[in-house]
Amino acid sequence: MSLLNSVWAIVAGLLGLAFAGYLAASVLKEPQGTERMKELSQAIFEGAMAYLNRQYKTLIPFAAVIFLALFFTRGQSYAVSFLVGAVFSALAGYAGMTIATKSNARTTQACIEGLDKGLSVAFRGGAVMGMSVAGLGLFGVSILYYFYGDPELIDPFAFGASAIALFARVGGGIYTKAADVGADLVGKVEAGIPEDDPRNPAVIADNVGDNVGDTAGMGADLYESYAATTIAAMLIGATSMEGELKIAGVIFPLLVGAAGLIASIIASFFVKMGPDGNPQAALNKGLWGTNIITGIATWFLASSPEFFGKFTEKSDTFPLGMPLGIFLAVVAGLVVNVAIGYITEYYTSYQKAPAREIAESSQTGPATNIISGLAVGLKSTMLPILVIVAATFIAHNLAGIYGIAMAAMGMLCTAGMVVAIDSFGPVADNAGGIAEMAELGPEVRKKTDKLDAVGNTTAAVAKGFAIGSAALTALALFNAFAEKVISAGKIQGEFALNLLEPTIVIGLFIGAAVPFLFCALAMKAVGTAAFEMIGEVRRQFREIPGLMEGKAKPDYARCVDISTKAAIKQMIAPGLLAVVSPLVVGFILGAKALGGFLAGTTVAGVLLAIFMANSGGAWDNAKKYIETGQYGGKGSDAHKAAVIGDTVGDPFKDTAGPSLNALIKVTGTISLIIAPFLNL
Amino acid sequence: MSLLNSVWAIVAGLLGLAFAGYLAASVLKEPQGTERMKELSQAIFEGAMAYLNRQYKTLIPFAAVIFLALFFTRGQSYAVSFLVGAVFSALAGYAGMTIATKSNARTTQACIEGLDKGLSVAFRGGAVMGMSVAGLGLFGVSILYYFYGDPELIDPFAFGASAIALFARVGGGIYTKAADVGADLVGKVEAGIPEDDPRNPAVIADNVGDNVGDTAGMGADLYESYAATTIAAMLIGATSMEGELKIAGVIFPLLVGAAGLIASIIASFFVKMGPDGNPQAALNKGLWGTNIITGIATWFLASSPEFFGKFTEKSDTFPLGMPLGIFLAVVAGLVVNVAIGYITEYYTSYQKAPAREIAESSQTGPATNIISGLAVGLKSTMLPILVIVAATFIAHNLAGIYGIAMAAMGMLCTAGMVVAIDSFGPVADNAGGIAEMAELGPEVRKKTDKLDAVGNTTAAVAKGFAIGSAALTALALFNAFAEKVISAGKIQGEFALNLLEPTIVIGLFIGAAVPFLFCALAMKAVGTAAFEMIGEVRRQFREIPGLMEGKAKPDYARCVDISTKAAIKQMIAPGLLAVVSPLVVGFILGAKALGGFLAGTTVAGVLLAIFMANSGGAWDNAKKYIETGQYGGKGSDAHKAAVIGDTVGDPFKDTAGPSLNALIKVTGTISLIIAPFLNL
Repeated sequence: MSLLNSVWAIVAGLLGLAFAGYLAASVLKEPQGTERMKELSQAIFEGAMAYLNRQYKTLIPFAAVIFLALFFTRGQSYAVSFLVGAVFSALAGYAGMTIATKSNARTTQACIEGLDKGLSVAFRGGAVMGMSVAGLGLFGVSILYYFYGDPELIDPFAFGASAIALFARVGGGIYTKAADVGADLVGKVEAGIPEDDPRNPAVIADNVGDNVGDTAGMGADLYESYAATTIAAMLIGATSMEGELKIAGVIFPLLVGAAGLIASIIASFFVKMGPDGNPQAALNKGLWGTNIITGIATWFLASSPEFFGKFTEKSDTFPLGMPLGIFLAVVAGLVVNVAIGYITEYYTSYQKAPAREIAESSQTGPATNIISGLAVGLKSTMLPILVIVAATFIAHNLAGIYGIAMAAMGMLCTAGMVVAIDSFGPVADNAGGIAEMAELGPEVRKKTDKLDAVGNTTAAVAKGFAIGSAALTALALFNAFAEKVISAGKIQGEFALNLLEPTIVIGLFIGAAVPFLFCALAMKAVGTAAFEMIGEVRRQFREIPGLMEGKAKPDYARCVDISTKAAIKQMIAPGLLAVVSPLVVGFILGAKALGGFLAGTTVAGVLLAIFMANSGGAWDNAKKYIETGQYGGKGSDAHKAAVIGDTVGDPFKDTAGPSLNALIKVTGTISLIIAPFLNL
Repeated sequence: MSLLNSVWAIVAGLLGLAFAGYLAASVLKEPQGTERMKELSQAIFEGAMAYLNRQYKTLIPFAAVIFLALFFTRGQSYAVSFLVGAVFSALAGYAGMTIATKSNARTTQACIEGLDKGLSVAFRGGAVMGMSVAGLGLFGVSILYYFYGDPELIDPFAFGASAIALFARVGGGIYTKAADVGADLVGKVEAGIPEDDPRNPAVIADNVGDNVGDTAGMGADLYESYAATTIAAMLIGATSMEGELKIAGVIFPLLVGAAGLIASIIASFFVKMGPDGNPQAALNKGLWGTNIITGIATWFLASSPEFFGKFTEKSDTFPLGMPLGIFLAVVAGLVVNVAIGYITEYYTSYQKAPAREIAESSQTGPATNIISGLAVGLKSTMLPILVIVAATFIAHNLAGIYGIAMAAMGMLCTAGMVVAIDSFGPVADNAGGIAEMAELGPEVRKKTDKLDAVGNTTAAVAKGFAIGSAALTALALFNAFAEKVISAGKIQGEFALNLLEPTIVIGLFIGAAVPFLFCALAMKAVGTAAFEMIGEVRRQFREIPGLMEGKAKPDYARCVDISTKAAIKQMIAPGLLAVVSPLVVGFILGAKALGGFLAGTTVAGVLLAIFMANSGGAWDNAKKYIETGQYGGKGSDAHKAAVIGDTVGDPFKDTAGPSLNALIKVTGTISLIIAPFLNL
């Protein structure tokens, strides 16, 4: 069978899923420890499932309306694509979350035996989400392409993915912070009990929140980027390539995805360490391995005679010839991966100057801590933007508009490993929580803390990856949108989004204002949800006799239920803003204004997302730096100021910031869907 | 003489200056009160002059380099235009600041006689700045046009204005906040003495700062908007009109400017009240009067047969005919004035929900206060953007690209009155400070406080005006830039900034990141300058024996000197970023990328500016609301939290936010200058 066949991508997708199954089985075989540990893990698992059930149930009517609308306006294939995109997102969510929440106590237990064993369990536990995301993404897109044979009919898959991702990000972000604030403010500050103390009624909700926010939210986010980028690249391949290259242009992104997924599977075997090894280094081996293997495989694919191998002559679009040009475009995307990771680490790690400056300025109180943190976040936007822009520039100069899509593909095809490493974080975090709640003693906690610290770094890196990839995905969607408008046949000549036309500028301004309003709504939502949570935790401390003395058990389930309900309720407003605003602009002001709108939303959304993620990360680590004993250490005035900064940073980095990724993509996928119906 | 003559604008400009002279003379005739009051006023005056001298001296080499560069590359006329633009800005600064700082003690003295007299002196004192700004702006542009007869040769005037405005905004913003923080943190918080206490070494610097930031900074800012908009409108008139209309299109903006200036003069006589009247209402009469008179005059101008009166037939560009279309475009600008004023008031006044919500959330501590304030600022961006966009849309639909320029002109032509009312604020604020320092008793202070409270509202409204007008100015400059690139003759056919070309998107992204980085630098600069100030104030309290007991006088001059030096030094980095970034993008990536860059800087700059100004204003007023006795009033925990929010808001609303106006304009004026030298 020729390489020019989407079956290879189907096979790779299934391989990813099989590997996820293998990992799941291997994790479930691990011992879960004491009864108490089992019980805690079970409570977290049930809380997470309760949230997912309620979230998906809430989205069913919404999805049904869209399904029917697509069915009657665009036909069955279109509607089915949408449904498959949404359902696979939910499947990945359930699979990944089930194993992640069943791995926590097992990781704690493994840590008793050794840090290396703990790392192994936590990584495998998280990798199920990673492999499910990449496997279902690739399998879904390629099987639909196999049946339909036309990338045009698949783009609702991306819309389905992004609709789910939007609410998963917003809802998950609200959940995790409402629970966190409730647990911290009443438990730690008011009642004076330590983190993860079993007497805290919100402690299970807090642990559920880690999974709901980081694992499920990030998984849905990157599943969406993965699907949308692949589809946009296929669409651009179909329109920008000609003759015998057309089919190669469409299939190639699928095979780059396959290469990235198989590279992730292989590199996951590199994530190992000795009993005294460094868990960060082990995870880094996985990331580097994935990038390098993907790069090599891409070269073989691009230079294969079935793809671009025969077209080595230089042209205006491909000044180095097609194989090398396209290969280097993918490499540019891989380099963005690595570069954004390092930049994010620089601006947020407390080993580096920015977070230390925030710590230093905490000495003069909360106001200077806040100003300093905001300044770090604002400043941190420039380098990632330059990296993204440089990759775009290089990719475009070496391989035209297809090159930009392939750079995005290069970045995204490693999503399997990135999500695996990101989901490792909440597993390790929960493992620590369970060690604390099950009172396993400081020796075990010390080991889980080591894993947790690594998890914080990988979370920051994954956040950078999610934003960077969202930016590239949005650019790819933006170009695909233009292609769609052109192929809808409403225009004579070229479709241009000329900034000198007021319509485009108007769209640009409105589009750029949307992320600002969206952030405000998301932050407000956290406040409202947290407020309900605080009320409930206070009530339990007040009304349950013997709770503080450890003689009575708190009502964990009620807190889980409250954060679930509050998150679902509060996700509606920002979610609707994201969905409705492109419809309003598109149908009232037309396709050109919508083009400007997309550019505005993307540019403002990406900048705000970087600003918020890095401010939040830096505040968090500035606090941790002080807790190492600097500037008076824990309990000092500097520490109190830093805690305030960290609290401000929470909705920044865990709610509004990550939700922006979903915002900029969902506006793109919606626009793609409505493109053929718009006036100019 | 026909209306089609720029002499009318020259006359109106001179009339404005004569009126400024008349106001100055009338204010200087007022009694200054006691020796102590004279002495304090003199100290503030000298401090302000010391700052201006140093600021302009620092800018001389910078201006000289540009002058020579323009002289040798573009010829004498070009270089002279630049110089006149810069020198007139400095002249307006000196004239306005001299009278403003000489009016403070006179206002205090007048308040002893009655609130109505106080209002009258303070308004006249501030109006000198207003009339100087509008008078010199209009006179400068029209006299250059009179001699050169070609708007092309005048655009360096705008660049001169914007170079000065940039540093005046950044430097002034740093000065005022460094002094404020120094005075508050050490004086009020550490030493526990009240605001404006004469024992506070930073008290004079603090009062100087009010003038340097609000009067000089705002004056330079609006002088720049005024000049740049007028010139851009003339340029667009020259290129978008044909035949006999060409000259009308060029002269008309000048006469709208003349109408606005004369309207400001007339309406300033409406700013009167009875002894028990409401000073806010009196100032509002001035604003409304200016808008209405300008509107009426514009109709007579537009429908005059010498301008567009003969062209009443409907066309694609002018669907209502030229007179009505152009008139309504100007009215759209006037409506933006009023609308943005109300929106700003809504989001910042403590009579309204947003600031009250921040106050309420202060009860749960500084973190919730900060989150709430940030959310208010983020949310407040949408409405002003929609207003600006609607005005652009209407103006463009009724009068084409010329309509957009005329909407900007409609907004800006009232600058005389807006600056007058804005400069009233620092005069009233200083008057209160002098009442306190000269120990005139609570009866006088109560009256100056009333004026000061009004000044806070007018300051917020002027800030909204400055941002809105900067946005429209930037749009006008953006279009003028495109015209310049076309007229440089490097392109065949149309010059388009097509967002589907990666170069444009790259420019857009880099451009949008610049305001983020710029804000970070400005905020950091405040921190550094404030740090030096705090050190000095602490030193004086420590080393000057008898200071706290009131037996020894502090060394005011040293504090004034330190904030001056620190502000000048710290303004360099953000200033250079603003000046250098468009050069780098233009010369390395070309004219198209620079077009994208300008769009990015404008859209991100405007949004960040609104966000920062309104967050800052709302935090300030949330604190004031609590001080009225809500949530425990002064000294409560809620109040402490609100003070922290207010401190965070200070560099937002008084440094970074206003500096962004200057940033987005200076990038535009620089681009206009370098346009002919750029590759595509």
